[in-house]
Amino acid sequence: MIRHTVAFRLKHAPGSAEEKAFLDDGQRILAAIPGVERFEALRQVSAKNGFAFGFSMEFADQATYDGYDGHPDHVAFVRDRWLKEVEDFLEIDYAIL
Amino acid sequence: MIRHTVAFRLKHAPGSAEEKAFLDDGQRILAAIPGVERFEALRQVSAKNGFAFGFSMEFADQATYDGYDGHPDHVAFVRDRWLKEVEDFLEIDYAIL
Repeated sequence: MIRHTVAFRLKHAPGSAEEKAFLDDGQRILAAIPGVERFEALRQVSAKNGFAFGFSMEFADQATYDGYDGHPDHVAFVRDRWLKEVEDFLEIDYAIL
Repeated sequence: MIRHTVAFRLKHAPGSAEEKAFLDDGQRILAAIPGVERFEALRQVSAKNGFAFGFSMEFADQATYDGYDGHPDHVAFVRDRWLKEVEDFLEIDYAIL
């Protein structure tokens, strides 16, 4: 199992319709990609970093993760939404020790 | 629910006995603190950041999280182990959106 997480901050104003649309669309589009398990849209609540949100999802193995990464819906979401609407982000991926 | 995560890198050599002891002791000591749920010791596997490990745990609410933070076993672990053996870390806390 690989848990892929990304913490991020949007360019949109907090509480804005644009913010809600990004989070809703991200969850809807990414969670539907084959191989994505346990998708979560998250609020980042620690004051010890500058991120406001997170997405978390799990993949059975690296091949499934690679399939997600190259899936047209993921590629399009990154190109059309992520790169335009996200101000800063950090990807952290975990496997159980 | 609050999911508290910390990604970190140790001063110890990869694969060393000191590394194993830190990870084992961290899991044993922290997971036993009242209120800690779903404790996980994790390997960080993305090349997009410099962290090698992670701990993840969940708390029912902020008061339980605060109780963990101030618990003598947590305070002692931070003082006696974390501050001496951890080279770099980042705390990221999530709540379900």
